[in-house]
Amino acid sequence: MDTMGRHVIAELWECSIDILNNISQIKQIFVDAALEAGAEIREVAFHKFSPHGVSGVVIIAESHLTVHSFPEHGYASIDVYTCSNTIDPNVAVEYIIKALEAKTFEQVEVKRGKGPVKVKPFQKML
Amino acid sequence: MDTMGRHVIAELWECSIDILNNISQIKQIFVDAALEAGAEIREVAFHKFSPHGVSGVVIIAESHLTVHSFPEHGYASIDVYTCSNTIDPNVAVEYIIKALEAKTFEQVEVKRGKGPVKVKPFQKML
Repeated sequence: MDTMGRHVIAELWECSIDILNNISQIKQIFVDAALEAGAEIREVAFHKFSPHGVSGVVIIAESHLTVHSFPEHGYASIDVYTCSNTIDPNVAVEYIIKALEAKTFEQVEVKRGKGPVKVKPFQKML
Repeated sequence: MDTMGRHVIAELWECSIDILNNISQIKQIFVDAALEAGAEIREVAFHKFSPHGVSGVVIIAESHLTVHSFPEHGYASIDVYTCSNTIDPNVAVEYIIKALEAKTFEQVEVKRGKGPVKVKPFQKML
């Protein structure tokens, strides 16, 4: 497989606190986001922290999606990395932003693969 | 927990092809890298692709480590993200670079958490 990839790093604020603390709901959102982008799911691993917060990953044939939620801050830290020409990571990121009901967010896209690591700044507020 | 985090993105080239295609060895290297940095492991999920390549994640109490290996290119794509003040992601990244026997590599550090996503370029060749 080609090593070139697109890695979107997104910071989501003012999300739904209830969703951010619900491991089943977050897991489903990330599985659905991967499928929405046309990715093939290989492994799913999520962990609920005490007293709050969820971390998880969906490993796809084309790389991965990860989340770390901080319900006490309404914040979720998201990564969607794809190394296929046919999968757009932004499709999954946009799905996640809506599903977590984020009112403000910010994202950058990092080019992965051969050669210097390139970062394309991108900022958008709802 | 504080939302601030440090996320190191590393591209490793000219790695050991045998290690890059050995799921058991890669899994052990990533578990050991997390422990070396002083992280607490919560979930471990790795997947071996056919005919070659391994993807995997170690979810730690302080965020995650991920890897995607492309043995046919001698390349591994690495992320180490920590949201604790006491854990330095570079300790894990340096452990991984040595363990995968990478002859060339490059890395950037991304500040995660509240406020604009900030990227600190950092490039080093062995």
